[in-house]
Order: sequence, then C-alpha cells, then structure tokens
Amino acid sequence: MNMALTHILAQADAPAASMNIAFWLVPFASILALVFAYLFYKGMKKEEEGTDIMRKIALHVRMGAFAYLKQQYKVVGLVFIIMFAFFAFLAYGLRIQNEWVPFAFITGGFFSGLAGFFGMKTATYASNRAAWAAKNSLDHGLRVAFRSGAVMGLVVVGLALLDISVWFFVLNHFIEDANEAHKMIIITTTMLTFGMGASLQALFARVGGGIFTKAADVGADLVGKVEAGIPEDDPRNPATIADNVGDNVGDVAGMGADLYESYCGSILATAALGATAYMTNTGVQMKAILAPMLIGAIGVILSIVGIYFVRVKKGASSKELLSALGRGVNVSSVLICVASFLILYFLQTPNWLGNWGSIIVGLVTGVFIGKITEYFTSEAYSPTRHIAEQAKTGPATVIIAGMGTGMISTFYPVLAIVVGTALSYIFSAGGDFANISQGLYGIGIAAVGMLSTLGITLATDAYGPIADNAGGNAEMAGLGKEVRRRTDMLDSLGNTTAATGKGFAIGSAALTGLALLASYIEELRIGLIRVADNPKIGEYTKSTLEQFEKLGGVTEASLMDFMNVYGVTLMNPKVLLGMFIGSMMSFLFCGLTMNAVGRAANQMVNEVRRQFRETAGIMEGKVDPDYARCVSISTKAAQREMILPALLAIIAPVVMGLVFGVAGVMGLLGGALASGFVLAIFMANSGGAWDNAKKYIEQGNLGGKGSEAHKAAVIGDTVGDPFKDTSGPSLNILIKLMSMVAIVMAGFTVSYTLF
Amino acid sequence: MNMALTHILAQADAPAASMNIAFWLVPFASILALVFAYLFYKGMKKEEEGTDIMRKIALHVRMGAFAYLKQQYKVVGLVFIIMFAFFAFLAYGLRIQNEWVPFAFITGGFFSGLAGFFGMKTATYASNRAAWAAKNSLDHGLRVAFRSGAVMGLVVVGLALLDISVWFFVLNHFIEDANEAHKMIIITTTMLTFGMGASLQALFARVGGGIFTKAADVGADLVGKVEAGIPEDDPRNPATIADNVGDNVGDVAGMGADLYESYCGSILATAALGATAYMTNTGVQMKAILAPMLIGAIGVILSIVGIYFVRVKKGASSKELLSALGRGVNVSSVLICVASFLILYFLQTPNWLGNWGSIIVGLVTGVFIGKITEYFTSEAYSPTRHIAEQAKTGPATVIIAGMGTGMISTFYPVLAIVVGTALSYIFSAGGDFANISQGLYGIGIAAVGMLSTLGITLATDAYGPIADNAGGNAEMAGLGKEVRRRTDMLDSLGNTTAATGKGFAIGSAALTGLALLASYIEELRIGLIRVADNPKIGEYTKSTLEQFEKLGGVTEASLMDFMNVYGVTLMNPKVLLGMFIGSMMSFLFCGLTMNAVGRAANQMVNEVRRQFRETAGIMEGKVDPDYARCVSISTKAAQREMILPALLAIIAPVVMGLVFGVAGVMGLLGGALASGFVLAIFMANSGGAWDNAKKYIEQGNLGGKGSEAHKAAVIGDTVGDPFKDTSGPSLNILIKLMSMVAIVMAGFTVSYTLF
Repeated sequence: MNMALTHILAQADAPAASMNIAFWLVPFASILALVFAYLFYKGMKKEEEGTDIMRKIALHVRMGAFAYLKQQYKVVGLVFIIMFAFFAFLAYGLRIQNEWVPFAFITGGFFSGLAGFFGMKTATYASNRAAWAAKNSLDHGLRVAFRSGAVMGLVVVGLALLDISVWFFVLNHFIEDANEAHKMIIITTTMLTFGMGASLQALFARVGGGIFTKAADVGADLVGKVEAGIPEDDPRNPATIADNVGDNVGDVAGMGADLYESYCGSILATAALGATAYMTNTGVQMKAILAPMLIGAIGVILSIVGIYFVRVKKGASSKELLSALGRGVNVSSVLICVASFLILYFLQTPNWLGNWGSIIVGLVTGVFIGKITEYFTSEAYSPTRHIAEQAKTGPATVIIAGMGTGMISTFYPVLAIVVGTALSYIFSAGGDFANISQGLYGIGIAAVGMLSTLGITLATDAYGPIADNAGGNAEMAGLGKEVRRRTDMLDSLGNTTAATGKGFAIGSAALTGLALLASYIEELRIGLIRVADNPKIGEYTKSTLEQFEKLGGVTEASLMDFMNVYGVTLMNPKVLLGMFIGSMMSFLFCGLTMNAVGRAANQMVNEVRRQFRETAGIMEGKVDPDYARCVSISTKAAQREMILPALLAIIAPVVMGLVFGVAGVMGLLGGALASGFVLAIFMANSGGAWDNAKKYIEQGNLGGKGSEAHKAAVIGDTVGDPFKDTSGPSLNILIKLMSMVAIVMAGFTVSYTLF
Repeated sequence: MNMALTHILAQADAPAASMNIAFWLVPFASILALVFAYLFYKGMKKEEEGTDIMRKIALHVRMGAFAYLKQQYKVVGLVFIIMFAFFAFLAYGLRIQNEWVPFAFITGGFFSGLAGFFGMKTATYASNRAAWAAKNSLDHGLRVAFRSGAVMGLVVVGLALLDISVWFFVLNHFIEDANEAHKMIIITTTMLTFGMGASLQALFARVGGGIFTKAADVGADLVGKVEAGIPEDDPRNPATIADNVGDNVGDVAGMGADLYESYCGSILATAALGATAYMTNTGVQMKAILAPMLIGAIGVILSIVGIYFVRVKKGASSKELLSALGRGVNVSSVLICVASFLILYFLQTPNWLGNWGSIIVGLVTGVFIGKITEYFTSEAYSPTRHIAEQAKTGPATVIIAGMGTGMISTFYPVLAIVVGTALSYIFSAGGDFANISQGLYGIGIAAVGMLSTLGITLATDAYGPIADNAGGNAEMAGLGKEVRRRTDMLDSLGNTTAATGKGFAIGSAALTGLALLASYIEELRIGLIRVADNPKIGEYTKSTLEQFEKLGGVTEASLMDFMNVYGVTLMNPKVLLGMFIGSMMSFLFCGLTMNAVGRAANQMVNEVRRQFRETAGIMEGKVDPDYARCVSISTKAAQREMILPALLAIIAPVVMGLVFGVAGVMGLLGGALASGFVLAIFMANSGGAWDNAKKYIEQGNLGGKGSEAHKAAVIGDTVGDPFKDTSGPSLNILIKLMSMVAIVMAGFTVSYTLF
C-alpha cells in the first residue's frame, strides 16, 4: 500500500496548475462513504419490523418527523432564496462579491439539509427494527442501532467531502487568474462561503429541532411523569409521540446538520489558511490546501474500518457494550495517527512533522474534552452525585448545584483547548510564535485532526437517539420488561457516547472558530482586491487601500499588516465594544432559545392537561390521545421561534461591519467565540449532569423513584433540557455562523463601513 | 459663588510643580461628607429605640453582624499581611516595583473595610429605630431609614476622597523626578495600586457577605416558608436572626466596600489616563489629573444637597415615597451637570467641552441602565409578570423563563454601554477615533460622571436593607400589621432603588474596567523604566526594550506603540487564548460562589430542620430557637468559601503574565471584562425578576400565597438569591480586581515572562 501511496503522493510535486492526483482520494473516499452508508441502510431495512403495533407507532413517529422536516425545509428554503437573491445582487449588481458565492451558499445549505434528511430517515426506520432485534438479543439490537447510526455518520462525511471535492474541481477549472497563488486564495475563500450555507442550515436545524424536541419532552415529563405519575413513553401520554419525533428531528437531523457544518468548516478554513500562509510557493501552497482534505478522506476510510470492530458476543454486559463502541473509535483513532503521518510525510507539506504534531494534539484534545465531559456529567462520578445529593433539600438546591457545577466544569475544557491550541500553533509554526500564518494553519489542521474520525464518532453519537426511540417503541408496544431493559442499556451507553460527541463538537467549534477568525482576514484581502478599482468606494476604504499601497499592495500584505491597518488591537475601542456585543450575542441567543422552549413547553403542558381533563378514557388506556395535535404544537412553535435567533446571527456581523468596520467585526467574533464557547460548555454540562442526577436517583439511590428527591431531580432535568439540547449546542453553530457571515460579507464591509 | 470659583480655579494655570489650589476642594469635600455622615449618625442615635424586645432583637442582630465582621477582618487581615510582605519583597527585594505600593495597597484595603464597618454599624443601630419611627408615621420611618442610608453613602465617598487626597499630597511631596510629567505618571499609577487593596477587600466583603446572607436566606425560606409554612421573619425560625444579620453584612457592608472600590477605581484610573494622555504639557496634565477628583468632590457636596430634598408629607402614598427618593437623586444629578460644566470651563481642561459631554453621557447611561434594570425586574412590567405566569406550570418553567429573560435582558444594558462608551470616547477624542489616549480618558471621565452622585444614590441603595431589617424587627417584636405594612412599603421602594443602584454598579464596572485596561499599559511603561537598568532581566524583556529603543524610548512610546511591540492584536494566539481563559474565569468564579451558597444553604436547611425536629416547643413559640448556631454556620461557611475565588482572581493575571506575557494578560482582562460584564447583568436581572415574580404572586395574583404557583415562584426566588446577591455583584469586582492585580504586577510581568 505504501508503494501505491508514494506513487500517488509523489505527484504532489508536479506543477500546481494541473490538478494534483492525490486530490482524487477525496471524491473516492466520499463515494466510498456513501456506498457504505447505502449498504448499512439496506441492511437495516432488511431487518424484521416487529408487531403490527410496533409498525404503527414507528409510522406515527416517522410521519410526524417528516411532516416537521417538510415544514422546516419550506421555511428555511424561503430564507435561503431571499439570501441567494441578496448575494446575487452583491455579486452581479454591486460587483463587490465573487460571482460563485450565491451558488456555493445554496449548495452548502442543500447538502447539510440532505445529510440531516438521510440520517433522520434511517433513524425513523430503525427504531422499531432495533427494538425487535433487541428482543432477539442485545448484540442484535446493538448491531441494528449502531449500523443505523453509522449511516448518518457516513452520509455526513461523505456528502461533505463530495461537496468539497466537486467545488474544488469546478472552481479550479473555471476561475482564471494569471497569478497561480492568487487563484488558489480566491478558490479557497470562495469555498469557505459554502460553509455559510451549511452553518445557516445547521443553525435552523439545531434551533428548530431543539425547540421541537424540548417542548415535547418538557411537556411530556411535567404532566406525564410529575403530575399524572405515568412512566416515560407511556402511550397514554398525548405528548409521547411528539417526544419521540423530537428525538429524531432534534438529536438526529439537528446533530447531522450541525456536524456537517463543523466538518466542512474545519476543512475549508484550514485550506483557506494554507492558501495564504504558503502563497509564496505554489507547489507548497497546493499541498497545504490538499492536506486537510486528504486527512478527511483517509479518516473516512478508517472510520469504515472502525465500524466493523463494533460488535459484542451474545449476553454481553453493559461494560462490554461500551468497550465495543470504544474499540471502534479507538481503532479508527490509532489508525488515523499512523495514516496522517504517512500522508504528510509523502505529501511533504511544509514543516510536515509539525503539522502532524498539530493533528495529534487536535485528536488528543478532543478525546480529553470528551473524558472531562463524561466526568462532569456521568452519575458514576462525584460532581453529578453531589447534585443528586442536593435534591434531598428540594429543587432550588438541585438547580443551584447544577448551575454551579456546570460553571466550574468549564475550567478543564477551556484549559485543554488553550493548551491544545497553543501546542498545535507552536508545532506548525516551527517553534516560533512569530510565524503567525503557519501557526494559525496549525490550529486549523488540529481541528481537522479532531474531526477526522467523525464518520465513526458520529455513528456512536447518532446511535443514542435511535436506541432511545427503540426503547420508546418497545414501551409503547408493550414488548415487556426484558426488551425494555436491553434498550435502556443501549440507550444509557448512548448517553456516554453523546458526552464524548459533545466534547468533539465543542472543542472543534473553538478551534474552527479561531481558524475562521483568521480566514476572515484572508477574505478581506480578496474583498479589497475586488473593490480596489471601483470608483464608488467610500473614504474609509480609499484610505485603507492607500495604507496597503505603502506596504507594497494588498496582496503582499501580511496578516500583521492587516491587523495594523485595521487597528485590531485590544486598545481600539471599536474592538472592545465589538467584544461586548459579541459576548452579549451569545447570551441573547441563549435567552431567546430558552424562552422559546419555555413558551412552547407551556403550550404543550396546557394541551396535555386539557386532553387528560377533557377526553375521558385516556388514563384507563381505552381511548387514544390526540398525538397529532401535540406534534403540531411543537412544529409550529419551532418554526415561529427559530427565525429571530437565526436572523440576529446574520444581521449582527453585517451591522457591526457597517458601523465599526473590520475592527468591530473582529471584536464581535472574538467576543462571541470566547464567551459563547464557555457558555456552551456550561450549558451542556449542567444539562447533562441534571439528566444523570435524575437517572442516579431513579436507579434507587437517595429514595429512588417517586421520592421527594426524585421530584426535585426531575425539575432539575427539565430545566437542563433546553440547556443541553437547544441553547448549548446551537451556540457552537452561532459562533461559526457569525464568522461565516462576516467572511461572506467582507466585500460589503470594506465597501460600506461608515466610521 | 462663581466669582470665588473662578478665583480658585484660575490658579490651575500656575506651574504644576506647586500644588494646585483647586486640589484643596477634594479634602474639603471629603471632610464635609464625613461631618455630615457623623451628624446623620448622631441624629439617628437620638431616635427612640422602641420596646425592650425590639432592643433585644436589634442587639442580637448587631452582635451577630459584628461577630461576623470581626471574623471576616481577621481572615482578610491575614491575607493582606501576606500580600503586603510579597509586595514589599517585590519593591525592596527585587526592586521591580514602586516602594510605595505595599503601603498604598494596605490603606486601600483598610479604608474600604472601614467604609463597610461604619455603614454596617449605622444600619444595625437604625433597624429598630426605623421600625419604631414607622409606628409614628411613614414619613418618620422614611427619614430615619434614609438618613441612616445616607451615612453609608457619605462615609464611602468621604473616605474615598480622603484616601485619594492624602495620597496625592504625600506622593506629590515625596516622589522626586527631574521630569515633572514623568513624576505625575509615577504618582497616578502608584495611586492606582491602592485601588487593588480596595478591590481585594471589596471582593472578600461581597463574596463572604454574599455567601453568608444567601445561605441564611435560602435556609430560612426553604424550611420556614416552604416546609413549615411560617411567614418571613418569624421569630420561631432559627435562621431568622442569621437572615437579618446577612442583610447587614451582605447588602450593607458588602455593598459599601464594593462601591468604595468602584468609586476609587474610576477616579484613579481616569487620573492615570489623564497623566499619560497629556504628558507633553505639564500644566494641562495637572488639570487632566485633577478633573476627576474635582468632579467627585463637587458631586459629594451636591449629594448632601440632594439628601435634604428627600422628605414626604404625613400620610404619603408609596408613589409619593418613591418620588421623594427620586427627587433627591434628580436634584443632585441636574446640579452636577451644571457644576461639572462650570468646573471644566474654569479649569479649562483640554477639550473641556468634549470632556463635559463625556460626563453627561456617563450620567445618562447610568440612569438608562437603571431604568432598563427596573423594567426587566419589576413586577409592574411584562417580563417579570411573564415569569410569574410560568409559575402556573411549576418550578421548572419558572426557572427556564427567568433564565431566558435574564439572558435577553443583557441586550439593552450592553447596547447602552457600547453607545455610551463610543460617545464618551469620541467626545473627549475631539471627534477623531485616532486620538486613542484622549478618547480613553473620556471613557474614564464618563465613569466618574456616572458615579459622581454616589453619595446620594448609595444612600437610596443602603436604605433598602435598613428598611428590610426594620420590617424584620417589627415582625419579630410583634408590632402589628400597620407598622409592618409601612415597613413593607419602605422596603419595596428599596427594591426599586436597588435596581437603579445595580445599574450604576454594573455600568461603572464596565467603563472602569475599560479604563483600567488602558491604565495597565501605562503601568507597563513605569515597569519597563524601572527594570531597564536591571542586568538580570530576561531575553523577552531585553528584546522588548530594544524595540522601544527604536521607537525613541519607553517614555516616548504611544499607546499604539505598546500595542504593536507587545503584539496585542486579535490574531495573536496569546491574546485569543487569554480571552478564553478570561471568559472562563468569570464562569468559574460564579460557579464557585454559587456552589458555596448551595453547600452553606444545605447545612443551614439541615440545621433548621434539626432544630424543629429536636427542640420541642419552637413551633408553639414557647422556646427560643438557637439563633447563634445558624449565625455561626453562615459565618464559618462564608470564611471558608471566600478564599478560593479571591485567590483565583489574584493568581490568574500573574500566571498568565508569566506564561503568555503582556498579550496574554490583555486578552485575559478583555475576555473577563466582556463576558463577566454580560454574565453579571444576566445574573442580577434573573435574580431580581424571580424575586419580584414571587412578590407579584404574594400580592394575590395567580392564586396568591400558598398556591402551587407561589411555591414554584419561591423556588425561583431561592435560585435567584445567589444569582443577584452573591455571584452577580461579585463579578463586577472580579473584573476590576484582575485588572488591578495586572497593574500592580506589571513590573513583575515584564521582568519574568517566559514566552
């Protein structure tokens, strides 16, 4: 294999103008991922569907989920069409933007939505099949649920690499520039803009899905569990179908779009940074651009290998289940360490060993954050047990403890990211802090390393809600305790892997956010070149261009030159005030999404109470409750409430650019990144810990189910629901979306800044 | 009067070497404030003390409060002695710090503690007297409570101006420097370091007091109100004395130290910025240094005038009461607008009209933030009513709504601060964003303007807990419903004025934080001069000095030169990672203090439950509960728990300086400021809104007292307690303390940075 690899990669030394042959590994891996996804999907479809009632329930959930997605895509489609028209106007009317941007934007959104759609489709077909398989054996249940999760993982990485390689090929073919190095800068920054489409789609999916699922969950729990005292997933609860639909649209489709965005963002930002960091040598430049794509590609192949390592013997314990999942991820991770070494060695990227160090740092940081997340949110460790203890004195002390512990838990992940970033920077910078461009490239490639095993980590992540839904299906269909016990076992594993997944999502968001901040400057370069000969540009831009003229022209200016010309220092009030606004944006965004969940949950509670009150026979199980009405409440609420937060994310960087210029935008992005990152960890960890504190009590500790402590813990869990599944994960996207908007609108900002 | 003023201020044109005669207005105002404080104190002491039982209760509370303060000052004293020794070592041993620093540090802490002590002493003598006066008439009650609050307001500003003027006089006399402009820079930056003493003392007071009061409050409420169903301040509740003690040590002593710190910080930072912004002309420089002190001085005099406007007729309604308080503040505010115009006009500070504009902007911003705070936290408006509505569906939805609304509420104050800062900057910069030094001076002077009426705003603020304690005293002494109604009326006004006070505290913290960030650079200048001829300095510092050499020397370098040499741009990873750590510090600090309250409250709940269970006759009112034990639990918890958060605030900037140098420290301070500021608003507003949502229900809405909605609202209020009275207000101090530490340790940082 090494021989073949050497042969392919050696071509990297060919003149950059001809497409490098190593590039073809990217579409190859993409197609491979999609083929395997299709095979796993077909395999899952062949499994038995279970009893009639199981089919019926699954159908209910599937129909609800698709009805939601249809409605969601209608609204989002409208937003995308408006944005497309706006970008087209900027590109063709005002000529301040690359003409490929509107199309890149649309495809990013489309593929992101597609990834969510396929993932969800698979999940909704898999739930009853996994439940029925679990009736056979735990092993069988695991295989069905995990392979279905793998469909999602592979679809996400497959579509992402497909989108990336098609655009790279197309732009490389069509974009003309006498200067090869500049051409590559234009290509990579244009490709970055399709990241914006992916981010916007992801934000809608996460926020909308998050509101849907948590409104249903909170509503179902508060009236069902707390007031009526019926168990989770009881078919008598009118909100129970909505709750299961929510798992699919929030945890599956939402997460798919989210990680599609992260994955694309990290690869594209790194490629863009590589294009400018090494623009003095086109051969090296091409290698720096290809490296993140190739690492992604090889990661996909090794993820498929890892997936085949996930299997358990019959009668496996929950520990064995966990180690089976862990084995798959570990195999992929170890292989990627070796493979990326070989790739970089044969590709001979500049400072290839340093770059490899950055990749390893990224991988290790991701794993570490995952472990820390597990420590702070699993009931096996003292922080969550401490929170559970506080339930003995009532809901207020549970909430205070959960919030306090969540806030404290931000210490380690932030420290990990700081150390990881510093190391990946310094490795790729060759030990010299002053090599800013190379160092930033290292941060980007660390993010790529962290996400390189996404194919399998996402599989372990998406597997969770599928197992959860299987449990719901088994419960509603009355499959009996043993099946439920098995699906619970599968589900609880899902919680652990979800914690790890969140670690990767948050960690990669921070690294990618940093890389995007740097890419913003590169996009400014292109924006300035574009407007330079436009006679209508304002005074601000004219004087900016004059300053660059003195430095030898825009294209020759370094990152530091850009910083100086735009005064992006911490003493510039525009930067500081931008930071205030950025920090506030994170909180405002969380507040809006929290309140949205609150309002929707309130409607749900009232509806469930109304049905219990008005429809006789529900509680006796004689009459079916009106499930559809609950689904419809969640759907409408999600559509209504997701617009404003998303609009804010788009508008804030644009307005800031108009008012305070580049300095203000950089401050905004930096402030949002620094505070949003920490806020996201806090919310995810508090929410996770409350959830597991409740489970700890339900396991029979501190009085067990039905005790006062349990009631208090359920309230904590309910508060935590929007924390961990709506606001927290959406923040990761918000950070990146704002950067993406700033990048896409860079031409606009440099043309129309007021002050 | 204008004639006399002209005469005095004209002297400002005399050579700066001789002390400017206008300076003497500062000690004069300081003495005046202390004299009036003494008179109000004596007047209050002459009031009747009420019945024997009232005396006894007041004595209990007073003894508890002093016992706490004694213990607190012991611990804090020890920390101060250690820090003193450390600073003395830096100054006399390593010679990398000004030799006045250890002493300035100590006096700052001492005076801050003294302000808290006097305020608390007054408050604990005033409670039973105010209750007894309220028995006479509402007017009488208001007068006693408000004048006692005024003691605190005047003591704080009086001691602050005394400390400032004595040090300015002493340093001016003793510090020798051939270059008059440099001498002034040394003096003002040295004075800044006594701000660190004040900040550290304030942090201990706020955190310790906050933990004490909320542990007692939460404990008293959860067992007393919720479980046993007895009213607030019922003498059968063992935690009730501790609760009343808490109001004094947290809300009075804590707030006194807090605002002492804010007040000093704003004046000292502005003076330091003035010294460097105008160092090319010593005459102008002296004026720029004196201006903030003089505005403070005139503000004190006008606050005393305003205090005499607070009075109501007999039989006044609660609306009339509020307008009486408002009248006092408004009179002072309007007068300060006029007076500061005259001062700046006659002083002829550089760009005096612009500076005046900055002061007005500061005042208006403070008032605006206060109004917004009131809107988001008063039960008269929809946000709080919406939260109360959510109580109908239980505690979880109340908490979600309170958090969501609190997060959303950050939008307006942040926008106000951004607009206010931008305007005050641009006014003082003479319309040109590039005049950074002058603009930053404008931000400082806006903070001084915002706090200029502190004498009276703090009086209206400190009045609240006094009225609250008077109500407690009346309740425990069984003075009857009418008296309780009156004290409740007085108390509820206190809540409104407290909201305004919080607006000023938060707003001034943001502005002062920005000014301190700028002052840090000035302190670096001094630090570099000091270490320049030290042969032992490391490579980092040597190369830094060389770079300044090329720019014409450290003293001639501009703020922007410093930014460039230290690479404090948003693309420097040291800055970005510093921002991550700074943002995390805010959350970590909140988490530690939240958990401290949770742990202490838990102990308190168990103790109260134990007493109810083990001591027969408490509930029948036959046996006195063991109040002292509850006081002791809160005291011990507060002492134990306050150390770690305070240490973190001291250690973080030092370690960051060692590892990532100036760039890292600036990132740390910027990140902490941007996220801490927003976090503080969120916590204060969520807490305030929960408190008033509960009161709204207690007024008979949504089912009134005892309903399920009420129980849910009490839980919300309990969660909000540490938000609004422990973590939130402490954050304002944390932001400034970290800046102060960075400033004091600047010499250390430039000497020993590793990378």
